[in-house]
Amino acid sequence: MKRTEIRLAGSGGQGLITAARIMAKAALLDGLNALQSQVYGAEARGGATKSEVVMANREVWYPEVLEPDIVAIMTKASFVKYGLKVKKNGLRIIDTFMVPEYDDHPDFKTVGIPFTHYDETQLKNRLSTNIVLIGYLIAKTKVVRPESFVKAIGDFFKDEKLSNNEKAFWLGHSLLGKEDRISG
Amino acid sequence: MKRTEIRLAGSGGQGLITAARIMAKAALLDGLNALQSQVYGAEARGGATKSEVVMANREVWYPEVLEPDIVAIMTKASFVKYGLKVKKNGLRIIDTFMVPEYDDHPDFKTVGIPFTHYDETQLKNRLSTNIVLIGYLIAKTKVVRPESFVKAIGDFFKDEKLSNNEKAFWLGHSLLGKEDRISG
Repeated sequence: MKRTEIRLAGSGGQGLITAARIMAKAALLDGLNALQSQVYGAEARGGATKSEVVMANREVWYPEVLEPDIVAIMTKASFVKYGLKVKKNGLRIIDTFMVPEYDDHPDFKTVGIPFTHYDETQLKNRLSTNIVLIGYLIAKTKVVRPESFVKAIGDFFKDEKLSNNEKAFWLGHSLLGKEDRISG
Repeated sequence: MKRTEIRLAGSGGQGLITAARIMAKAALLDGLNALQSQVYGAEARGGATKSEVVMANREVWYPEVLEPDIVAIMTKASFVKYGLKVKKNGLRIIDTFMVPEYDDHPDFKTVGIPFTHYDETQLKNRLSTNIVLIGYLIAKTKVVRPESFVKAIGDFFKDEKLSNNEKAFWLGHSLLGKEDRISG
């Protein structure tokens, strides 16, 4: 069985749950099974929140993310909390606009890109950084087909928001090869 | 540890995920921990979907719903799939507008209320039946404080939608004691 665990870590209001839900829907369109979840509670009160997706080509028996293959870090607080919880040989994606300084780690790959900066300068907002990041994540890891993700966006947004999120996705997708820093 | 597992079962488009997310947020406001999740995949392709919340007064170690304490059934397909998966002495809530005929079960309580009918006739829409049902569920089970749920609605909706969902919640809350049928 092929199984991929993805954790999006950041703070409330960054749209992590929506991003994870769209990704789960895209996985469904690709014929995969997915489980999408988030915790509300003591864990979240420290200012670091996370939303997760587990994708598998069979039924998702263990819905819990045990050790994520892919971790996206969108704030300093979430870096402190989740920055080292990555599977061996996994991938850590860091928004270097929010977390400019960090240590590399020999056990997994790290890529740094200032997603928030790209969102601000190229799309004139900071509301779609979540989707910019997912665009890159999908370009880099191919966990789902880009077309599936774009189609799934349509289940969550319409009109101007749909168009903005599509742009955000393709902006992120185009950032493959434009990393600030790659290690591991 | 006190732990409550809640499953909302119905079809896509009924707002089950939103309802579960608001409930998880309300649990957080009440000082509980909650995990909210949904599956996308083979399981959902049959037309019956579900969204779940696990609440506990300590950390939610087992995020998976093992045997729900409370099951809300909003369609026939979901009744067929999830109608008998209820914990012993648990509670099954059925929208009798959507599922007019069903068998009682000696192992758990069943209450039947035509939530969709109330939503249509008293609120002139069928878009907030999810929240009408949750209003009743909370009045009946007291899993979270009603005020916490209403406060949490404000994180998801604003303006007219906020007001409509608040009305839907209090309508549902007022249905305690007006059940069509109670058994078990």
